[in-house]
Amino acid sequence: MKKPFMDKDFLLDNDTARRLYHQHAAKMPIIDYHCHIDPREIYEDKVFRDMTEIWLGGDHYKWRALRSDGVNEHYITGDASPYEKFERWAKVLPRMIGNQLYHWTHLELQRYFGISEPLGPSSAQAIWEKGNALLPGLSARTIIKKSGVKAICTTDDPVDDLKWHRLIKEDKSFSCLVLPTFRPDKAINIEKPGYTEYLLKLSRVCGFQIDSLAALKEALRLRLAFFVESGCRITDHGLDYMVFKQGHDADQVLKNALAGKAPTQDQADAFKTDLLCYLAGLCREHGIVMQLHFGAVRNNSPKNFKKLGPDTGYDAIWGPADTGYRLGRLLGHIEEQVGLPKTIIYSLNPTDDAQIDAMIACFQNDDYPGKIQHGSAWWFSDCKEGMKAQMKSLANLSVFGNFVGMLTDSRSFLSYTRHEYFRRVLCNLLGTWVENGEYPDDMDTLGKMVEDICFNNAVNYLGLEISG
Amino acid sequence: MKKPFMDKDFLLDNDTARRLYHQHAAKMPIIDYHCHIDPREIYEDKVFRDMTEIWLGGDHYKWRALRSDGVNEHYITGDASPYEKFERWAKVLPRMIGNQLYHWTHLELQRYFGISEPLGPSSAQAIWEKGNALLPGLSARTIIKKSGVKAICTTDDPVDDLKWHRLIKEDKSFSCLVLPTFRPDKAINIEKPGYTEYLLKLSRVCGFQIDSLAALKEALRLRLAFFVESGCRITDHGLDYMVFKQGHDADQVLKNALAGKAPTQDQADAFKTDLLCYLAGLCREHGIVMQLHFGAVRNNSPKNFKKLGPDTGYDAIWGPADTGYRLGRLLGHIEEQVGLPKTIIYSLNPTDDAQIDAMIACFQNDDYPGKIQHGSAWWFSDCKEGMKAQMKSLANLSVFGNFVGMLTDSRSFLSYTRHEYFRRVLCNLLGTWVENGEYPDDMDTLGKMVEDICFNNAVNYLGLEISG
Amino acid sequence: MKKPFMDKDFLLDNDTARRLYHQHAAKMPIIDYHCHIDPREIYEDKVFRDMTEIWLGGDHYKWRALRSDGVNEHYITGDASPYEKFERWAKVLPRMIGNQLYHWTHLELQRYFGISEPLGPSSAQAIWEKGNALLPGLSARTIIKKSGVKAICTTDDPVDDLKWHRLIKEDKSFSCLVLPTFRPDKAINIEKPGYTEYLLKLSRVCGFQIDSLAALKEALRLRLAFFVESGCRITDHGLDYMVFKQGHDADQVLKNALAGKAPTQDQADAFKTDLLCYLAGLCREHGIVMQLHFGAVRNNSPKNFKKLGPDTGYDAIWGPADTGYRLGRLLGHIEEQVGLPKTIIYSLNPTDDAQIDAMIACFQNDDYPGKIQHGSAWWFSDCKEGMKAQMKSLANLSVFGNFVGMLTDSRSFLSYTRHEYFRRVLCNLLGTWVENGEYPDDMDTLGKMVEDICFNNAVNYLGLEISG
Repeated sequence: MKKPFMDKDFLLDNDTARRLYHQHAAKMPIIDYHCHIDPREIYEDKVFRDMTEIWLGGDHYKWRALRSDGVNEHYITGDASPYEKFERWAKVLPRMIGNQLYHWTHLELQRYFGISEPLGPSSAQAIWEKGNALLPGLSARTIIKKSGVKAICTTDDPVDDLKWHRLIKEDKSFSCLVLPTFRPDKAINIEKPGYTEYLLKLSRVCGFQIDSLAALKEALRLRLAFFVESGCRITDHGLDYMVFKQGHDADQVLKNALAGKAPTQDQADAFKTDLLCYLAGLCREHGIVMQLHFGAVRNNSPKNFKKLGPDTGYDAIWGPADTGYRLGRLLGHIEEQVGLPKTIIYSLNPTDDAQIDAMIACFQNDDYPGKIQHGSAWWFSDCKEGMKAQMKSLANLSVFGNFVGMLTDSRSFLSYTRHEYFRRVLCNLLGTWVENGEYPDDMDTLGKMVEDICFNNAVNYLGLEISG
Repeated sequence: MKKPFMDKDFLLDNDTARRLYHQHAAKMPIIDYHCHIDPREIYEDKVFRDMTEIWLGGDHYKWRALRSDGVNEHYITGDASPYEKFERWAKVLPRMIGNQLYHWTHLELQRYFGISEPLGPSSAQAIWEKGNALLPGLSARTIIKKSGVKAICTTDDPVDDLKWHRLIKEDKSFSCLVLPTFRPDKAINIEKPGYTEYLLKLSRVCGFQIDSLAALKEALRLRLAFFVESGCRITDHGLDYMVFKQGHDADQVLKNALAGKAPTQDQADAFKTDLLCYLAGLCREHGIVMQLHFGAVRNNSPKNFKKLGPDTGYDAIWGPADTGYRLGRLLGHIEEQVGLPKTIIYSLNPTDDAQIDAMIACFQNDDYPGKIQHGSAWWFSDCKEGMKAQMKSLANLSVFGNFVGMLTDSRSFLSYTRHEYFRRVLCNLLGTWVENGEYPDDMDTLGKMVEDICFNNAVNYLGLEISG
Repeated sequence: MKKPFMDKDFLLDNDTARRLYHQHAAKMPIIDYHCHIDPREIYEDKVFRDMTEIWLGGDHYKWRALRSDGVNEHYITGDASPYEKFERWAKVLPRMIGNQLYHWTHLELQRYFGISEPLGPSSAQAIWEKGNALLPGLSARTIIKKSGVKAICTTDDPVDDLKWHRLIKEDKSFSCLVLPTFRPDKAINIEKPGYTEYLLKLSRVCGFQIDSLAALKEALRLRLAFFVESGCRITDHGLDYMVFKQGHDADQVLKNALAGKAPTQDQADAFKTDLLCYLAGLCREHGIVMQLHFGAVRNNSPKNFKKLGPDTGYDAIWGPADTGYRLGRLLGHIEEQVGLPKTIIYSLNPTDDAQIDAMIACFQNDDYPGKIQHGSAWWFSDCKEGMKAQMKSLANLSVFGNFVGMLTDSRSFLSYTRHEYFRRVLCNLLGTWVENGEYPDDMDTLGKMVEDICFNNAVNYLGLEISG
């Protein structure tokens, strides 16, 4: 029986799935524990000029789609008028059948603008006008409240003064937690251009010279302490590939780099191994969570990197070997040296799923149920098929009820519907298992499990104090 | 409800899928832009002696199946009588449930011979006789016309004189385009046996000595120009794995090889990187398409290679790491140095799909919509599950409507039913999304998308002028 | 329509599947050609004290699940009372939706204890009591007979005297074959701690000094001959990753190791390549089967390895590259040097499936139908999704009817229900293809194929003489 386009039972194929979603998942608030929202825009309660600013402004997913359709950069990141850009997007979308952006777009139109008509060339003008008219009432904070978001973890550099986080915290009119995430990639990626310049910056913030590994560690320790005082509950690392290397003196590798001598790949990996272990120990001391993201190969088009810089839609999946092997060695090393903090692991390569799921079980213990997590399907995999695959693999190799669930990883305030998308996929998967006789029709247990994965697990895992 | 065996709604599970297939896909002609058909057989309008010659003659897919069933080589590539060979094939087939060959075989029996009975030991004799009786009316050209094929791109060596392509072109009684594909593997694979002998051959065709990289490039430039004059719209490269290496002087690597000094793996990779970049630039100048095939590990049985030579059923999947990484580096390098031509990328390893799909989006631009393509599921993946997986991954990460669709990659004239197979899988996937409420029930857009992917996109992408 | 929880039609979604399972699969006896059962427990007809001993005693799958739920080691491998441990297991299980252990647990409760109620905190006490009450009647041999097991291949070290196998064979009251498997990992893993100590042990068993490759080979030759005399029909190798390396003198590598000089990775790989080839030749001479297991990264938690030792739940998936490439090179080398025995290949990494399936077809010949096999989904993949994926890939690239099917790979006597699980997945897959019109509704052929894959193929492949 044909289902209507993206109606209330979107992605819910059976009765159990529908009951789980409508009675349990839909009502749960949101913890968005990993995103790239600008806290200043929250503090200032940003209002958006038009649909292009809110939708296409910084969204490199959509830029890639436009380029894939042969659209000139003038209409993507260039000087074309907002409506011209919007029109191009409306033109490409209908041929993006099966793409996550197709669903995200229509969920956003439905939930925030009350528009259920599909976007396409013939509806572009009307949706542009209707959407724009509603934007004054859709400020950053309004969207957050409307979406039921109780906590947001932004992504922040160790040198950040966290001014906006402080101001938000002081503003008693806004109850959603907006917490910084400590992401020290620039202090760790010793092989990347600009590394020594970054250390100077960090040095200035800390007030002492960083001329040794000990000094760098002390700087990071101090900054993390400041972040934690400011509410930080989670750190994050973006690695090209999962690293583990020993046999090089990290202090010497750093000193060489400071003296202008670039590290070999092995030396860089050994340096990172040392720092990751040190930072894991700090997370453990503070009782906060460490995230490891890996598998991205970035800035693949040198030509366009020169024009547009990073994070403009030129990233992809690396595809390295030995992920399981190195992940095991790194976690084993950390466990032995300093003890493992709560850790969430994400690979951009979906073929790493089984390796991650088999490995995390090797490091679980009675510190916390589900202490080591395999993060929700990330970036290119953050689609129906990708989420389903991640969940099936995780369920097969873990205690699925302990999963901390979804995050948006987004730069856009409209992305909270991705939580809805995730919840529909989740409820459908569980519902299908029940209807297929693979799990008892026990709605108490199932309903609680859904509510936990949607919200409670993340609250408890991060140790958040959620009001109301 | 049980469906009849391979009837008109084969692989079409819902109403939308059936409408898309029967009203849109089925009527479209075929562009077979990558195959291994012998153009001489087209020119001479080959008539086949018996079912064994047309079906088992050069089909190493079937040879592998026979060997897997313990059949003696005498009945495969040996001197057994045609019927004895056919009988062996009829015997193994029924136990090949789930195999693409099972479906290909019966599609071919249905479409070209009007036989809907399954092939097996009990039907072998009758099918042998009925099939043989029809063969005189099933010449190469008859099959091509009957199948609605409008263009065929064969696979040709740079030293080929393209005589048969010229003769076909001159023959006004045959309107299907038969175009050469420039495949210079033997000029590029500097580490393989016979390399210097091949350069001598190329040298003789060009009329000058090839003793430097510059001379080799000039030879390839001249031969490609000749191919393009002869109608070539596409080139092809078969790589063991995706290569990218710099830091070796390609000219010196070549001179060493000519002097009998074999290159290291890195040197060979650097040499290939240089030549691929050069040839990409030529493709761009001519406005033609470059294909990159990689991931095959060939001639795995040295014992049988000595007896039977290459392309006899002893190839498999390599499974290398870092495909995404190196693909990005190679495309980025070409883009910066000479600009990217239209490019189609195929990996033999299905686990590369996401890496390829994420990467091609990094190199799209306004040269052409869908300029960089992820080719249809190749060789071992060219089955229902493989095609579905490739399409889902492509749809998730691209503008699916721009997909250039199917090719047979076949040595057999009966393989055009693989386009039908592809179209059924395609329509079923799109239909399922519609029926599941994931895309609007908009038959105008969907019908056009199907017709484009089946035919129009390939015509436009290759820049073909199709008559009638 | 919702199906009841794990009833007689569990995992059977259509009529053809149900007919295939109930009329063909269910009645077939079991050949368990790879497991880790202790033959002494069979000989002594072990009776289990309580549900914890029989279920949680050595089952590191369950230990991992308990740790994943934050359970203290005291209640897992520690000194807690049997019921306390059982209770913990009952508590975690309901949140393990989608996990293979969920299904295994309930199949075991249903088949051996007649308990159809789901295990959970509220049913724990009753199931504990009911289960314990039945244990005196569920001795090792009773379970084996009740399960219809006709042959068991245990896993044994070359130094083993096979006393228990001999005693079982002499005991005419027990007709199930219990055969040793020759697993010489400790003689091959030259890079692992304890290697030279192991060679001393082997030396003592053989009665001569092992101070050269020739002596080691002679020792292994003699031990294998003894195993074969004792009924051995199969050998097994556990490799971290698929190895193939040449260019090092294996004799010298061994002599260095004996002199205390550890091999490089390449040297160890070359040593293993040499020995694997030698042992393959012996298997071929004896007409027995060689198994290659690879892709496990073991003992990932050094901290817990020190406390608990190996095989305690700290293993995972390696994820190496070039599996296809090296597998091809190794098999090609063996084929050329000594000829290939029947060989079964298993990778722990599900993304190797296509590489294995494409490769085995390169080494099939008329020695035996399906001579080279891709083993059933292994360990972490031994679940519904994993088995389905392995079967689909195998079917696509092989003659599926020749598949030798399932083994438990288990340390527990209750695991024979895994064969039932496999058979249900198998019948459902075949049934689905038939109902979908992808294969004729030919129950004679299908029924025979199911019976072959469940039992006959393994009997014939191993060359077993099964009584009544």
